[in-house]
Amino acid sequence: MGWKDLAADKRSRISKSIPSDWVIQDVPKSDSVFDYPKTSGIFSAQELELTNSTATELVAKLAKGELKSVDVTLAFCKRAALAQQLTNCVHEFFPETALAQARELDSYMEAKKSPIGPLHGLPISLKDQLRVKGLETSMGYVSWLGTYDEEDSVLTALLRKAGAVFYVKTSVPQTLMVCETVNNIIGRTTNPRNKNWSCGGSSGGEGAMIGLRGGIIGVGTDIGGSIRIPSAFNFLYGIRPSHGRMPYGKMANSMMGQETVHSVVGPIAHSAADLKLFLTSVLHEKPWEYDSKVIPMPWRSSEEDAIKNKLQSSGLTVGFYNFDGNVLPHPPVLRGIDMVVEAMKKNDHRVLPWVPHRHEYAVDLINNIYVGDGCADVYKDINASGEPVIPNIKDLLNPNLPKVDMNELWDVHLQKWDFQMEYLTKWREFETENDCELDCIIAPISPTAAIRHNQFKYYGYASTINLLDFTSVVVPVTFADKTTDGKNTDHKPVNELDATVQAEYDADAYHGAPVAVQIIGKRLTEEKTLAIAEEVGRLLGNAVTP
Amino acid sequence: MGWKDLAADKRSRISKSIPSDWVIQDVPKSDSVFDYPKTSGIFSAQELELTNSTATELVAKLAKGELKSVDVTLAFCKRAALAQQLTNCVHEFFPETALAQARELDSYMEAKKSPIGPLHGLPISLKDQLRVKGLETSMGYVSWLGTYDEEDSVLTALLRKAGAVFYVKTSVPQTLMVCETVNNIIGRTTNPRNKNWSCGGSSGGEGAMIGLRGGIIGVGTDIGGSIRIPSAFNFLYGIRPSHGRMPYGKMANSMMGQETVHSVVGPIAHSAADLKLFLTSVLHEKPWEYDSKVIPMPWRSSEEDAIKNKLQSSGLTVGFYNFDGNVLPHPPVLRGIDMVVEAMKKNDHRVLPWVPHRHEYAVDLINNIYVGDGCADVYKDINASGEPVIPNIKDLLNPNLPKVDMNELWDVHLQKWDFQMEYLTKWREFETENDCELDCIIAPISPTAAIRHNQFKYYGYASTINLLDFTSVVVPVTFADKTTDGKNTDHKPVNELDATVQAEYDADAYHGAPVAVQIIGKRLTEEKTLAIAEEVGRLLGNAVTP
Repeated sequence: MGWKDLAADKRSRISKSIPSDWVIQDVPKSDSVFDYPKTSGIFSAQELELTNSTATELVAKLAKGELKSVDVTLAFCKRAALAQQLTNCVHEFFPETALAQARELDSYMEAKKSPIGPLHGLPISLKDQLRVKGLETSMGYVSWLGTYDEEDSVLTALLRKAGAVFYVKTSVPQTLMVCETVNNIIGRTTNPRNKNWSCGGSSGGEGAMIGLRGGIIGVGTDIGGSIRIPSAFNFLYGIRPSHGRMPYGKMANSMMGQETVHSVVGPIAHSAADLKLFLTSVLHEKPWEYDSKVIPMPWRSSEEDAIKNKLQSSGLTVGFYNFDGNVLPHPPVLRGIDMVVEAMKKNDHRVLPWVPHRHEYAVDLINNIYVGDGCADVYKDINASGEPVIPNIKDLLNPNLPKVDMNELWDVHLQKWDFQMEYLTKWREFETENDCELDCIIAPISPTAAIRHNQFKYYGYASTINLLDFTSVVVPVTFADKTTDGKNTDHKPVNELDATVQAEYDADAYHGAPVAVQIIGKRLTEEKTLAIAEEVGRLLGNAVTP
Repeated sequence: MGWKDLAADKRSRISKSIPSDWVIQDVPKSDSVFDYPKTSGIFSAQELELTNSTATELVAKLAKGELKSVDVTLAFCKRAALAQQLTNCVHEFFPETALAQARELDSYMEAKKSPIGPLHGLPISLKDQLRVKGLETSMGYVSWLGTYDEEDSVLTALLRKAGAVFYVKTSVPQTLMVCETVNNIIGRTTNPRNKNWSCGGSSGGEGAMIGLRGGIIGVGTDIGGSIRIPSAFNFLYGIRPSHGRMPYGKMANSMMGQETVHSVVGPIAHSAADLKLFLTSVLHEKPWEYDSKVIPMPWRSSEEDAIKNKLQSSGLTVGFYNFDGNVLPHPPVLRGIDMVVEAMKKNDHRVLPWVPHRHEYAVDLINNIYVGDGCADVYKDINASGEPVIPNIKDLLNPNLPKVDMNELWDVHLQKWDFQMEYLTKWREFETENDCELDCIIAPISPTAAIRHNQFKYYGYASTINLLDFTSVVVPVTFADKTTDGKNTDHKPVNELDATVQAEYDADAYHGAPVAVQIIGKRLTEEKTLAIAEEVGRLLGNAVTP
């Protein structure tokens, strides 16, 4: 079969995986499908209630036997089937396996009267990089179709051990190296809130799936924004843990083995509390006993408590910036930062400007790291099937680049290390100058709200944080509003890309698009940074998003 | 100047740095200079007592003002001067600066009545990779001479902050990539116990210096045994912490920027307690706030206590091997392992055989990593001055190797990760099969006792642990004995190298050479592994070595 036939076959298999009872006869034509589930008539009242819950609530009830996993799983399977039909966000859908797994967990509960683990019976949605024994991991490459995994990824296995139920693997862009989601197998995944907007990427299938509550916690990965951008574009929370906190072992990836900037894995959800549930549950399984790259560092409640104590007493000290010196964000994003700054000041936190240190340099450095092999790896996988390159990738990944030579790579490593240490020096200097402990930095995660298709051009707000390996949590803030977010006419572009991005803003087209910020902590500060994110969300009235 | 003149000039400067009062008129001609300090007549009784103390004792007295740093520093400066004359172990010696620093600390103590930090007033010896502002870091390359450092390495700065006094930088082999210590600047550093034996390498200067108690704690580095081999060859303790525990920032190195297997920095000392003093003191200064590669992980007393509790109750469960399947150790080393196993069994610890998993594969893998740039980096620094390659390096580092290409490197990264995860699987399987928690593995650190010059051929016992990034502590065990350690006539060599190494054994030549084992813990288990090492040393009667 040619690549088109292989892709068509996969699409057909995805279609057939949806039981006929769950097939929507009249797919809505409206730009937004966000409210469709409530009015679809497909769900019982209990199913709607279950899928509108938080994971924290569900696991509490599942652990007491007050809920059956099979009911929760069925509800999410149905809603996921609907999300697929509405946004095209699925690579693998396997409700029968999921329901069988749920029934087993229910039997376990009935027999033992206690949960098998901290996620007992909870459905978890997986990005199509996580391997699940018996399923395909295509990752958006046609050439990867037809190979079935013989073992679980480490994270899959540990989530399973913790009691999670798997039912779906979600879409990614070809190569994973873009913050939109389009590939030659399934086409494009769209944003539930407006089909003209991107769901983000590369964990874009998760963004759409969790955004529509076809899942309650989704697992994404991030090497340059791939967890955080879909979280932001779908009004969700997402955490990019620092490298070494969560197990990436035996997962698929593009450019596997590239270790100059590590891709990391982490959750996307509707609340900071649910992100925490995911992290604590995985750490409960001691991932460092399975994956050599995971640091033996259990969840540190004391770190979290340190933040909570400050919230009760002195308040936090927070830095912020709204412009990295490279590309000015659109008006809705600037307003988002303002909203967070104001909300924090109003609550007696100390909020001080942070000067982004050499972000332009950092962005250049990481962009060169992404293409260190002259893009040989991604083009090998693309070309193996004869499929074409998606447009977004054609611009980004030039197949005619030379490979970086070993000694050049070592120089890059030193440049990265120096930059990271300079950033720590700036952090310490800030603390000395302001006689404080700097708890976090608040910044844009993308220069735009949920973006129109094929327009994502600037990764720097996200990728600088990857280069630093800092912990970052995305917090949903507000929505673009044409009445307040007029075009920025004063800004003098600092470079061509800045001009291009700014020109793309259109108050009407962006009206209603989700706006988020990222809360940035130093390396391996997941506990602190999540605790701050939770507080920021609470102050904004977004503790749990719809 | 040509390279010979540059080297001669450096030697002359080292000679001149020794005050004339400390110059030995008649350098002893005996093979061993180990007992010379006691009989030299250079030291006062107090100076001998100070230099024969433990660091833990000294810092306790310095912190109470019961000792003056200037007295302690003077004693170690004198003894270091003597060590240099006896073993040729110094690259930089600066007693006047040290004494000035000591006087400042004494004034501080007098004024404040409290120590400046946990190492207040304690002299620390530094391998010539640590940068000290104002001094040369030649690292054994002639071409590096004449450049004076403009800033301290991170570790230097933090040790200084903790109250350490610097007075000497010790010798290393050209390139650092050998476990003996010889370079074209100073020639060869010898073993204090027998000038025909190597002091080990690459932290060989530290081995000789601490071995002769010209220093009480020395700082070394280890990418393939370079802390552990000199510790073993000088009857000392040494720890190779896992990567990310101690700060390596702004230190010099060969192949700087190579991150596939990280070199790590750690102490060499006369007791496990003094190693712990070093680690806790550095961690006290929060190195993660300065060096981005350091994990924010303070000293975990709870981990140490877990071992101590087991010692009081169930005892430990320990694995051991005496042959990695590649190169059989010499008879004294096999006997060393037996001694440790017997001592532990006698004290009701559970000691079970560990099957070394694919060590041959691991050794090949790491050997290829060491030459990933086709040795371009080390030959650039060698050739820059026209100096010749030392014989040990000529065999190891072939300048005609091709560079590893980027995609090949990524494959190597995956092979490394897979191997590490396989090893963790074996560790878990061992625990399941034996229904235990495996606390550590006891193994040879080198196939030989302190080796004769130019004979070090096999790095695998050390380097496999580097590839795994496991924590490893060397514990001194015994001395080769010609009456018990007869030549092994039964062993059928498994390969050519095995035959070569075995043939090198000569019971007479090795008589009296130090024998050690390494105690291996999983990644980032410094607290546990040191606590076990301390107990093993105690059982052997080697809690503090001479």
